[in-house]
Amino acid sequence: MVDTGFVAPESWTEVDGALERTFELPSFVEALAFVNRVGELAEAENHHPDIAIHYRNVTLRWWTHTAGGITDRDRDLAAKTSELAAG
Amino acid sequence: MVDTGFVAPESWTEVDGALERTFELPSFVEALAFVNRVGELAEAENHHPDIAIHYRNVTLRWWTHTAGGITDRDRDLAAKTSELAAG
Repeated sequence: MVDTGFVAPESWTEVDGALERTFELPSFVEALAFVNRVGELAEAENHHPDIAIHYRNVTLRWWTHTAGGITDRDRDLAAKTSELAAG
Repeated sequence: MVDTGFVAPESWTEVDGALERTFELPSFVEALAFVNRVGELAEAENHHPDIAIHYRNVTLRWWTHTAGGITDRDRDLAAKTSELAAG
């Protein structure tokens, strides 16, 4: 179920039914390393965000297809990926 | 300069001033491995495509900001990344 009382984790915003945040990394190489850390988490959780890489900027979108929107799991994983951006 | 007689490499299409192609890989892990191979090439060439990952689908967009569109270099690198998708 999609929550009605929506509260996004810090620095994330709701865009088109997904939790979205763009991370600016120091370089393309570090952006790609971040994407790999996110990918490892996503694979372990079997829940995969949409990922867009624009040079050293990485935009993540967490949402749950089967729920048609954002769930607690997305909020949890969004918060976890924020921690991964720190390296 | 942007060419006027545009010919896209096989399987690539021109979308909004960029050479675009979506690759469907066998799994998310293989999609991420492909992105890493593309990233290694991009870093070596100091020319970086926009990359979007949607589970096991990877969309690449090659374009040259300073030229305002697609150049021979983009066509060359597009063709090279097609080869990388094979693994």
